[in-house]
Amino acid sequence: MDYPTQIEKWSVFEFSCGGRTDANPFTDFDITACFESGSEKKTVSGFYDGDGIYKVRFMPSFEEEYAFRVSGSFCDEVFEGRFTVTPPTGGNHGPVRVCNTFYFAYADETPYYPVGTTCYVWNLQNDERIAQTLDSLKKSPFNKIRFCIFPKHYDYNLGEPRSYPYQGTPMDSTVLTKENFWDYGAETPGNNWDFTRFQAEHFRHIEYCIGELLKIGIEADLILFHPYDRWGFSRMTAEENERYLRYVTARFSAYRNVWWALANEYDILKNKSIDDWERYAEIITESDPYGHLRSIHNCIGFYDHTRPWVTHCSIQRQDLYRTAEYTNEWRERFKKPIVLDEIAYEGNIQHAWGNISARELVRRFWEAACRGGYGGHGETYFDENDILWWSHGGVLKGESPQRIAFLRMIMEQTPGNGLRPKAMAWDEVCAVPAEEDKAEQTGYHLFYYSFMCPSFRDYWFDDVNEYSVEVIDTWNMTVENVGTFKGRFRVKLPGREFMAVRVRRKG
Amino acid sequence: MDYPTQIEKWSVFEFSCGGRTDANPFTDFDITACFESGSEKKTVSGFYDGDGIYKVRFMPSFEEEYAFRVSGSFCDEVFEGRFTVTPPTGGNHGPVRVCNTFYFAYADETPYYPVGTTCYVWNLQNDERIAQTLDSLKKSPFNKIRFCIFPKHYDYNLGEPRSYPYQGTPMDSTVLTKENFWDYGAETPGNNWDFTRFQAEHFRHIEYCIGELLKIGIEADLILFHPYDRWGFSRMTAEENERYLRYVTARFSAYRNVWWALANEYDILKNKSIDDWERYAEIITESDPYGHLRSIHNCIGFYDHTRPWVTHCSIQRQDLYRTAEYTNEWRERFKKPIVLDEIAYEGNIQHAWGNISARELVRRFWEAACRGGYGGHGETYFDENDILWWSHGGVLKGESPQRIAFLRMIMEQTPGNGLRPKAMAWDEVCAVPAEEDKAEQTGYHLFYYSFMCPSFRDYWFDDVNEYSVEVIDTWNMTVENVGTFKGRFRVKLPGREFMAVRVRRKG
Repeated sequence: MDYPTQIEKWSVFEFSCGGRTDANPFTDFDITACFESGSEKKTVSGFYDGDGIYKVRFMPSFEEEYAFRVSGSFCDEVFEGRFTVTPPTGGNHGPVRVCNTFYFAYADETPYYPVGTTCYVWNLQNDERIAQTLDSLKKSPFNKIRFCIFPKHYDYNLGEPRSYPYQGTPMDSTVLTKENFWDYGAETPGNNWDFTRFQAEHFRHIEYCIGELLKIGIEADLILFHPYDRWGFSRMTAEENERYLRYVTARFSAYRNVWWALANEYDILKNKSIDDWERYAEIITESDPYGHLRSIHNCIGFYDHTRPWVTHCSIQRQDLYRTAEYTNEWRERFKKPIVLDEIAYEGNIQHAWGNISARELVRRFWEAACRGGYGGHGETYFDENDILWWSHGGVLKGESPQRIAFLRMIMEQTPGNGLRPKAMAWDEVCAVPAEEDKAEQTGYHLFYYSFMCPSFRDYWFDDVNEYSVEVIDTWNMTVENVGTFKGRFRVKLPGREFMAVRVRRKG
Repeated sequence: MDYPTQIEKWSVFEFSCGGRTDANPFTDFDITACFESGSEKKTVSGFYDGDGIYKVRFMPSFEEEYAFRVSGSFCDEVFEGRFTVTPPTGGNHGPVRVCNTFYFAYADETPYYPVGTTCYVWNLQNDERIAQTLDSLKKSPFNKIRFCIFPKHYDYNLGEPRSYPYQGTPMDSTVLTKENFWDYGAETPGNNWDFTRFQAEHFRHIEYCIGELLKIGIEADLILFHPYDRWGFSRMTAEENERYLRYVTARFSAYRNVWWALANEYDILKNKSIDDWERYAEIITESDPYGHLRSIHNCIGFYDHTRPWVTHCSIQRQDLYRTAEYTNEWRERFKKPIVLDEIAYEGNIQHAWGNISARELVRRFWEAACRGGYGGHGETYFDENDILWWSHGGVLKGESPQRIAFLRMIMEQTPGNGLRPKAMAWDEVCAVPAEEDKAEQTGYHLFYYSFMCPSFRDYWFDDVNEYSVEVIDTWNMTVENVGTFKGRFRVKLPGREFMAVRVRRKG
């Protein structure tokens, strides 16, 4: 039996203890714990971690004394104990929540502007690559990363992962033919898994990755199901899926930086119906005691993002040309935060989802931001060793991350939390602070001109106040204070693409 | 009495003669002529050209002997005569017609790929500017120009025109206030026109311009009405409009390069209803004996382009981001040629309709071309003397015209006449020859990658034939033959924006 007697608020309390190893410990025994402090009381499920060890985890939300009681069929004993929860330190702001309908904040109310990237299976690469990815992330603007629990089978991703989620052996991938290679619903004979026995090491390793991300302030947007599969993990039965989801939530929920992405491209997973997805959402919602953020990502058509369990819209590009530009319409339609997790990636591979220029990706980020949503990054530069950031992590080669960092800085300078679109002229995008009183107090306006190249623009806010004006070059990452203006005024611009103008009332 | 006894096919035969000058010769007398050859017989109306002279014009369509008979209340005499029509010479291919539903050809069946520009009132500038514009056009790729018969009142266009269409005097423009400046439906007091008496010199000058365009192979897309007006020409009565249209068609119809654009931005002309437009279309259709091309251009919503009198769709941008990309949908919807006369102009003025980059304008041209339509050019670079190509003509400053010339060359290399879109991969635009047999015979495919940056693409047409492949850089205007391929093959691309690939079957 092992547990700490003191931990920080919103960190992982873990109780571990030996237990029964006869029969199948993953399915035949249970472990449950009840945690109680002055302000909260929660009952949580634990899990079998292999090697005869059972664990139960908990994330406390109050700086109080907690008592706990662990019981279950895993062991004849009942365990009781106490621990003290201390104030959060460093960058610990708690889990991220939706706030004010369209926005996010950490539990301590610090605004959170998601600036996500995608590296689908960076976590399933070798140690060296993982260390390299973490180093790249540390230097990057990204504060969220989407990645998978199951391995991925796709272009540039034909190798075996470092580990599998189940005990057993994989198919011989050399038997794949052109015909069955991409048929995501098809049988892939030769896999030999025991879906009743998890490979605990696989999940321990993912926890290591989640923990490392947590240290550098990055949210782990965990993709629970995806179609790019040759091992059969996308084709398990409803019962197997439920067991998987309960195991995952028991293991990961106590990490404050976890988000649940039910699926990447749910609509390509041929053998799961909407009823199945609803059932899986129900399992996650009831098994995660902390209500982590939940989403479901599409390939073609959206899932019904109005479903109550969907906390925010995780959106994929809807058109080769126009996607971020729909952000304000989607806000109105779904009344939830709009996170454009995939709007095509900076890169040069053959597919258009992975070959837009840095200029175009950064433009899409700004369009999204000034329309009250959030862009998403990915990078797919062709690599002779098939190491593409989008799937493997590694190093960032592109020109967009530093510009996205610049945008993140601008977003974080918003008075209050969040930008909302404001209808101004037909030929500009304008954002103001989401909170009415903040917008009122500051007169803050952020205008974006996208690929238009105006050599000047005229503005009018009122006849009495003075406004300080900055001209922002979103590509060259400069902010130039061009002076103070009153009444109707004209701002000179360089007649180049990708300019923005920021206005604030003086005094 | 004066007329030639020999003229070239599709050129202007003009009969002129003195006549009555008592009362109002513009309204009180008529002049009509009947022309007859072995193959055609047409009755056409003439017009009063001032100074006691009446004229009647005719464009013969056959290399035959013609007889004519002129009569009317303009004079007590009846005139008869004959003339010989000789074969066309030089660049005379006859008037442009719609062919094969979506395309254009000259009357002699030479394919015509419209590559238009817009200079709204280049014709109403001083002689020097007009000469400069004609010189610029001569060196340009443009073979169509949109311009107005009435003067224009708008940003950068506040001066008086060189002449007015009616006898009388204009308002004092210094009395305009901010309030009535842009109210296109409003009264503008102070104008004093006799709408029953045309200023013949105004129209003679426009004929000079049409004639100069004809010499350099440019179609004159004449805008008959537009809303940008302070003189009241947009607010005439139905009767006045009918008189105007009959005068214009009597004067201009015999010029083979004339097209009728009923309006620029018809939907902004507040005091004209759909019934009015339909009536005006009817007048033009019945008064123009040659059936010149007819269109009506929108500001916001389209006119009903399915109306039988509309020969082709003259389209304005529908969205800040996406317009040329709708070309194939509009083909399906209207079953007529799609001419994107305004898809935003290359420039740097404050308005987004006039400040896209050359890159973006050229991209829109290619999108339109590879989707079976035609882009339209305009240029609005800010100028301290307010001389903007889009309105005044003058010199071209931009980077798009030479790239549009390059595209025109590529379009004119299409086997047969016209490109039609072919659905291939979701992430490319592909065009093939419009004529099924030409497409079949040549295996010609033109792929366009827009702002995508693929470093290679895979192709497959069949397993037996060889295909020659060219990589086209649409911005740098290069065509590189990269070899001959068979079966499934991969073409290396530079991973830059704006690339195209052209494929032709060998042998």
